[in-house]
Amino acid sequence: MSQLLYQHGTLANLVPGLFAGTMTIGELMRHGDTGIGTLAGLDGELVILAGVVYQVASSGKVRVVQPEEKLPFANVHYARFHTVGKLKNVTDSQLRPTIESTLATVNTFAGVKMHGRFSHVQTRVVNAQQAPYPTLRATAEAQTLFEKDDVEGTVVGYFTPLLYAGVAAPGFHLHFLSDDHKFGGHLLSLDVTEAELGIQTFSDLRLHLPVDDAAFKQEDFDETKIVKDIMVAEG
Amino acid sequence: MSQLLYQHGTLANLVPGLFAGTMTIGELMRHGDTGIGTLAGLDGELVILAGVVYQVASSGKVRVVQPEEKLPFANVHYARFHTVGKLKNVTDSQLRPTIESTLATVNTFAGVKMHGRFSHVQTRVVNAQQAPYPTLRATAEAQTLFEKDDVEGTVVGYFTPLLYAGVAAPGFHLHFLSDDHKFGGHLLSLDVTEAELGIQTFSDLRLHLPVDDAAFKQEDFDETKIVKDIMVAEG
Repeated sequence: MSQLLYQHGTLANLVPGLFAGTMTIGELMRHGDTGIGTLAGLDGELVILAGVVYQVASSGKVRVVQPEEKLPFANVHYARFHTVGKLKNVTDSQLRPTIESTLATVNTFAGVKMHGRFSHVQTRVVNAQQAPYPTLRATAEAQTLFEKDDVEGTVVGYFTPLLYAGVAAPGFHLHFLSDDHKFGGHLLSLDVTEAELGIQTFSDLRLHLPVDDAAFKQEDFDETKIVKDIMVAEG
Repeated sequence: MSQLLYQHGTLANLVPGLFAGTMTIGELMRHGDTGIGTLAGLDGELVILAGVVYQVASSGKVRVVQPEEKLPFANVHYARFHTVGKLKNVTDSQLRPTIESTLATVNTFAGVKMHGRFSHVQTRVVNAQQAPYPTLRATAEAQTLFEKDDVEGTVVGYFTPLLYAGVAAPGFHLHFLSDDHKFGGHLLSLDVTEAELGIQTFSDLRLHLPVDDAAFKQEDFDETKIVKDIMVAEG
């Protein structure tokens, strides 16, 4: 059976600063019920669970996003994770290798979802940018860090093979949302007390590009520089 | 309106020699009526027009491919080209810049179709390979060249932005089939007498990967080497 990951925009678009909203949340949500993304201007980190889009803002506040709001980049899919097992007392340095070892292959896209209790979680949220937008690399210095001990919540995100480094962040790109919806963001570090890990292997990637956006159409991408800048900004 | 390009496999898969057939022609043709590709073992060059799949074999012979035959790589879409004009007396060195100048943007995928009369056409067809397969680069030395003067026919293929160099051949990837179905292949050189050029801009790429194929799942890709090898083999 084909399992499809939908993506609007590319990480390469964000590198030179194409942060304008080029798709509405309403349109995006016709392609899945689970995912991650960011709003126009890189305004916060989106966590999409069971059809609800949450924004973690750089203030730290979490709110539900409305259908008419726009975004430059997101991934969504219909959740059909298969449970691969329970993780217990896994520290951050072992987390990504542990998840990677459960993938059927590192040569395709996969979804990751993990719910449970975490002894320590560190996240970051990019500060909303104003047009004219800076480069993605410049925003790496304009973000807010958050951390919390002993929290219950959900990790959701994706694994992207290195071959697609310009399309999305290679390796794991994970966001976090606490069960009480009071804490979240782009995941930097996570120590697992006990959590159930679900994986979904995608046979298909549907990549939607903002072909009606003048700035996207005219951008003169420096492809050789893009992957390097992605590594710095997403690292 | 969304315009979708469907692709089975990646050019990166072909680089280390993953030439096994991983999708049937019948499955492929549920996603379009126009396109290009190759059969299992890199057996010939496919030209897909109005729902019919033609194979140009390395013998030079052209035949219609059956639904149960398999392939490792192909692109298809539903033809809705818009005519951008007539080209007259365009020599090969000017052809690709001329087509590129008609694209709405070089930052997305586009389909190209050109029908008319050509004063000179040069093509190549890769010789069918047997398992265990060699690398793509090795096959560049195992191909047959064909040429013909004053021929009527169709050019069909795709433009891929440089960012997606591992996914497909960056720039133009064009195949040719004469109107009498007696001559064709992967296009190397073309002088236009008079031809109508059609372009179709894609907002969406649907990339389907052979996630059930053991060789694909296990392949340890050398991403840094892949794009270089693609440039050599497809140049």
